[in-house]
Amino acid sequence: MRTGKFIVLEGIEGAGKTTARDSIVAALNAHGIQNIVFTREPGGTPLAEKLRQLIKHETKEPVTDKAELLMLYAARIQLVENVIKPALAAGKWVIGDRHDMSSQAYQGGGRQLDKTLLTTLKQTVLGEFEPDLTIYLDIDPVLGLSRARGRGALDRIEQQNLDFFQRTRQRYLELVEQNPKAITINAAQDIAQVSIAVQSAVKNWLISQEKGN
Amino acid sequence: MRTGKFIVLEGIEGAGKTTARDSIVAALNAHGIQNIVFTREPGGTPLAEKLRQLIKHETKEPVTDKAELLMLYAARIQLVENVIKPALAAGKWVIGDRHDMSSQAYQGGGRQLDKTLLTTLKQTVLGEFEPDLTIYLDIDPVLGLSRARGRGALDRIEQQNLDFFQRTRQRYLELVEQNPKAITINAAQDIAQVSIAVQSAVKNWLISQEKGN
Repeated sequence: MRTGKFIVLEGIEGAGKTTARDSIVAALNAHGIQNIVFTREPGGTPLAEKLRQLIKHETKEPVTDKAELLMLYAARIQLVENVIKPALAAGKWVIGDRHDMSSQAYQGGGRQLDKTLLTTLKQTVLGEFEPDLTIYLDIDPVLGLSRARGRGALDRIEQQNLDFFQRTRQRYLELVEQNPKAITINAAQDIAQVSIAVQSAVKNWLISQEKGN
Repeated sequence: MRTGKFIVLEGIEGAGKTTARDSIVAALNAHGIQNIVFTREPGGTPLAEKLRQLIKHETKEPVTDKAELLMLYAARIQLVENVIKPALAAGKWVIGDRHDMSSQAYQGGGRQLDKTLLTTLKQTVLGEFEPDLTIYLDIDPVLGLSRARGRGALDRIEQQNLDFFQRTRQRYLELVEQNPKAITINAAQDIAQVSIAVQSAVKNWLISQEKGN
């Protein structure tokens, strides 16, 4: 059934996912792959986009960490079943802006939610489904947040949040370490260098895939 | 902290939950309890009501069984944390139109979702929190659906769904059997008899609670 491949970009704010996406596309195109679908999480289906609104913009009542996680997984399974799997089955390639590793890193590491809940959700909701390749853009949150906000210093609120992003980064590093289908790119380099590193990583991966098959 | 009590009504469509709620209120009032909060699931907070809309009325794309379950739990934890627990801590009594047992019966029995997912969600999302008393209104789905639709026969579509409701009822009966804090009321009796049975059950439970404390 699955003839296309699913490549996912992961990383904290300011890691440069948008630029990296263009680099992946360039590498795929250079390899003759043109039929590419882009997804983002949470979102990507009518229902998942409504959930994205609730997750990101609901402010009238406190959103519990658990409700946030459950809504993320509800959006994810809608995207997987209604968009990603059909695209892969039709031979398309899918580049995802975030996937399950984000929940493991942000909700598990950042928010420190229970590991049993996170593991069980991944296993029972997604089953065997996983990306063929995950590219993790690693950056120190101090630098990432500065980039994301377009200036050199963090304000008081951002400083408060720094621990959250440090825990998120730490969990990302652990997850990539354990995942043979994940690659870390040093995203602290300047953008041109990151772009070259991503293109090179994807090119090498494509070649290894062809040898493997 | 918890000085009020949480009483939940459960049962399939047409079991008579609305009438039974009035009977519980009458029994509580007769016992000198006036400060009562009503909840319904899914719903009961701004976010949970938005999720209720997505669960019940989203039609543009197929809603997967898993997304349905995850949205139900997201709505539930918002209701528990933001409404039910604060009410109980303030000494109020809460009467719930459905709670966790509905997910176990409908999504577990009716939709036949994985038991590990259901059990883990209950344990990790709700923890030790549970109703002090659950009143399950038991009725054959053929009779219940007829009542709910206000006539004597089931049409073709309703007949198709009958298996779903039979599985749901079967799971309800198993759950109540295993739950020492749950009572079954025969809801096939006429409404006046059901009302008397519910009032009597609540009265006896209140007396047993006072003896127990």
